[in-house]
Amino acid sequence: MTVPDPAPSRRPADSSPAVGSLTAGEIAQMVGGVLHGDAAVAVRAVAPLERAQSDELSFLASARYGGAFAHTAAGVVLVSPELAGASGAVPARIVVDRPHDAVLTVLPLLYPAPARIPGIHPTAVLGRGVNLGGDVTVGAYAVLGDGVTLGDRAWVGEHCVVGAGVSLGADARLFPGVVAYAGTVVGQRASIHSGVRLGSDGFGYVYRDGHHAKIPHVGRCLIGDDVEIGANTTIDRGSVDDTVIGAGTKIDNLVQIGHNCRVGRLSLIMAQVGLAGSARVGDGCVIAGQAGLGGHITVGDGARIAGQSGVFGDVPAGETWSGYPARPHRASLRATAALLKLSSMMRDLERLVKDRS
Amino acid sequence: MTVPDPAPSRRPADSSPAVGSLTAGEIAQMVGGVLHGDAAVAVRAVAPLERAQSDELSFLASARYGGAFAHTAAGVVLVSPELAGASGAVPARIVVDRPHDAVLTVLPLLYPAPARIPGIHPTAVLGRGVNLGGDVTVGAYAVLGDGVTLGDRAWVGEHCVVGAGVSLGADARLFPGVVAYAGTVVGQRASIHSGVRLGSDGFGYVYRDGHHAKIPHVGRCLIGDDVEIGANTTIDRGSVDDTVIGAGTKIDNLVQIGHNCRVGRLSLIMAQVGLAGSARVGDGCVIAGQAGLGGHITVGDGARIAGQSGVFGDVPAGETWSGYPARPHRASLRATAALLKLSSMMRDLERLVKDRS
Amino acid sequence: MTVPDPAPSRRPADSSPAVGSLTAGEIAQMVGGVLHGDAAVAVRAVAPLERAQSDELSFLASARYGGAFAHTAAGVVLVSPELAGASGAVPARIVVDRPHDAVLTVLPLLYPAPARIPGIHPTAVLGRGVNLGGDVTVGAYAVLGDGVTLGDRAWVGEHCVVGAGVSLGADARLFPGVVAYAGTVVGQRASIHSGVRLGSDGFGYVYRDGHHAKIPHVGRCLIGDDVEIGANTTIDRGSVDDTVIGAGTKIDNLVQIGHNCRVGRLSLIMAQVGLAGSARVGDGCVIAGQAGLGGHITVGDGARIAGQSGVFGDVPAGETWSGYPARPHRASLRATAALLKLSSMMRDLERLVKDRS
Repeated sequence: MTVPDPAPSRRPADSSPAVGSLTAGEIAQMVGGVLHGDAAVAVRAVAPLERAQSDELSFLASARYGGAFAHTAAGVVLVSPELAGASGAVPARIVVDRPHDAVLTVLPLLYPAPARIPGIHPTAVLGRGVNLGGDVTVGAYAVLGDGVTLGDRAWVGEHCVVGAGVSLGADARLFPGVVAYAGTVVGQRASIHSGVRLGSDGFGYVYRDGHHAKIPHVGRCLIGDDVEIGANTTIDRGSVDDTVIGAGTKIDNLVQIGHNCRVGRLSLIMAQVGLAGSARVGDGCVIAGQAGLGGHITVGDGARIAGQSGVFGDVPAGETWSGYPARPHRASLRATAALLKLSSMMRDLERLVKDRS
Repeated sequence: MTVPDPAPSRRPADSSPAVGSLTAGEIAQMVGGVLHGDAAVAVRAVAPLERAQSDELSFLASARYGGAFAHTAAGVVLVSPELAGASGAVPARIVVDRPHDAVLTVLPLLYPAPARIPGIHPTAVLGRGVNLGGDVTVGAYAVLGDGVTLGDRAWVGEHCVVGAGVSLGADARLFPGVVAYAGTVVGQRASIHSGVRLGSDGFGYVYRDGHHAKIPHVGRCLIGDDVEIGANTTIDRGSVDDTVIGAGTKIDNLVQIGHNCRVGRLSLIMAQVGLAGSARVGDGCVIAGQAGLGGHITVGDGARIAGQSGVFGDVPAGETWSGYPARPHRASLRATAALLKLSSMMRDLERLVKDRS
Repeated sequence: MTVPDPAPSRRPADSSPAVGSLTAGEIAQMVGGVLHGDAAVAVRAVAPLERAQSDELSFLASARYGGAFAHTAAGVVLVSPELAGASGAVPARIVVDRPHDAVLTVLPLLYPAPARIPGIHPTAVLGRGVNLGGDVTVGAYAVLGDGVTLGDRAWVGEHCVVGAGVSLGADARLFPGVVAYAGTVVGQRASIHSGVRLGSDGFGYVYRDGHHAKIPHVGRCLIGDDVEIGANTTIDRGSVDDTVIGAGTKIDNLVQIGHNCRVGRLSLIMAQVGLAGSARVGDGCVIAGQAGLGGHITVGDGARIAGQSGVFGDVPAGETWSGYPARPHRASLRATAALLKLSSMMRDLERLVKDRS
């Protein structure tokens, strides 16, 4: 397989600028590792072994990448203890228990988050009675409706449209192009990516007099503190009750959350998942990609739902479910295995049935 | 399960402003109910029993919520006949056959739709030959291409981009951030939510000379009267023929409708459904969430497709289908039940086959 | 089934303007067909048989549409050899081997792509150090961050937000409302439709100290030459490594591509497909609608994945897989067939098992 690589070297200038620089000695100390080699080698960025340059940091956590390690041009490499002796000529190797975790420790120093510049862009349109906290940022062409409230250091990106009365907590961030309908409340430090729609009307109609009459939606869309929501995800407002996303929950791209849903704290909801109206998801749950939850069902605390599952009934706390329709994961696996065996036994079974009759 | 509730009281100021106020006596008359208690109690909003305040209306339609009713602070509660005698001390209870329907009757009065203010925002960019009906609204930063036509009272939200020659019917509304490509026609009273893309090119290529050559798309994207389309849904234009959504059909969020599809009147298409190119859906159909329809298949009038179904063949009118691949719902249920039984019979069946051979 | 047709005649003015006009004689020569009838008949547009007007071109490639041919008002019709003698009174019929291919040859002449007008709209906001190639177009309200590079003739549509340091190749086009985060590189002639989000953060967290700590995303989002990406699709940037879409690959609407994914050249990815993080797709693959690929799996060159498949393991080059969990297509079909048979045999099998015990 040819996986093209249009641009072999990843330079900091192309992504978040890496303004920092760290020496091998500083990194070893920071991650609690043992340094072998030149403590003075300095790195300015992180890159995979096969593309790292002499001023870049890389990592080796699996024997599978031993070949890449042997030929890497990286200046410094974090290496797991069992691979400490891997052959290669990097100027500095740092042996550390979990190289991936160590990279995470170093990343924020080499790639500090881009500075937020407080201020209201002159092209922003602000409604009447807008209530701005200290040091907020409002980007170009953003539109804030009447009575919008921004907490301290809140950041409304370019081209966002924030409906009347919407409130953003301190340090909340809307990336460019978010729309928050009236009735939306966003918690502190929440991070809402481009194209997210918060508080749009739910899908509710009553068939009468030959047409689908719309149920007015007057509930709110409440996004808790420290929630992150991925690009182009949609979260409807409640009809009479509210739609609620609990604090610390993380939601991926292109997820649909229907009206009146309640998602607990610290749950993870992966890409393209759909929650039908009034579904409830507990705390600490994991719902994997493309899974669907039916209306009014409940997924208990700590439950895990496999990718593409179709959940049409309640899932008890702590259990792992999968399949269509979803059942406990072991039952799903058994059913799948049985079905595969069945294919090869079918002829024999048909004969048995025929013999008997 | 802890379902967090960042903001226990839902005040009108937070969502659509409730400018109206109704007394218990007025509500009883309006919904044809029987009032028990103080006819003069006034309410300004609707809320669930557990969060309602003394100036709010709530409802009790299931014995399951009897406890919440006993402790509610609501001023007025709509109660179904069988729960008429539920214990509780609300100032006014109104006994009515279907409390949910009664709430729908009251909602528009307590939450009148936000007033639309006619006018063209000074930041809107209008192309040459734009044809504006009476009393239209064009929001901040909207861009109308050359030759766009807006019917009377049409409402183009902030940040919409309306392509050259696009036509919007009277009273049609584009919420903020909609893009309508050239070739789009939107009917009267249609309501298009944020982030919808109408008339984008369909996915059509011919492989020739070592690359995928694009098929030009010159068909239109025709959205009928009274259609509602949910946030971030995409509806491609036709290639040579048109893509058509029939009058009164309602489409949820994140739905994909491919080129040349035809959807009839008064159908309901729920979130994350996908229709491949040239699929046809009749009148009065219901396609539940995350279902997928293959290209060129036909779903007959009044048919219903269960959530996550994969429809690879025609579905006769009036039938309910489910599963992957989709079949008549009873056959799907039987297959699922058989598969579950099979798991537990597998060992026995294997012995039977072995004995015979 | 009533498929409504709000506007029976498709006039060029409603879609892309058809500025050209061709005679039957010119068309016959152009497509290498044999003309029967009046060589001077001129057409200005293409339409299906049942709606074509006297100045429009249509086509007949299947006996199924013989009735429509008999009654069409089209001025010129492309007809396949086996239907050359179909009864009808069109002024000019052109017999040609593949009428559909012939239409593709004629379309670009009747519907030339709308002219791109070079220039920077006065409302566009340009950051410091923006690097503009020759003859670029930047639409109304577009925002270009610091250090953005546009190749010659690049076209940034209205309302696009292009992050700091992003680079667009020559002749690349962003349709209105695209957001490209910092770290995005778009190749030459790439075409990115409305609402696409490129380079948003991937879904990566480490649970520590009672919350999901975000993994910084510093990799890039690299879109190759000649790639087309459909409306509202999301492609995350890499975490440390990059996310890469190979040259000539075409991606449909509402697709999700997670961090660190690598898609090869000339592949086709249809609507609502999801690729979890670090998935790899080879060259010349076809992934049909709503399929999902698990994290870190590899789909080999030329492999085909059926619609709605759930791919949880590697797929060898050249194979066709389907189902949930996905397996080779034949095995899936056998399993489906076995399951259907099982439903009707279940009672007999249960008796057999009972008899034996």
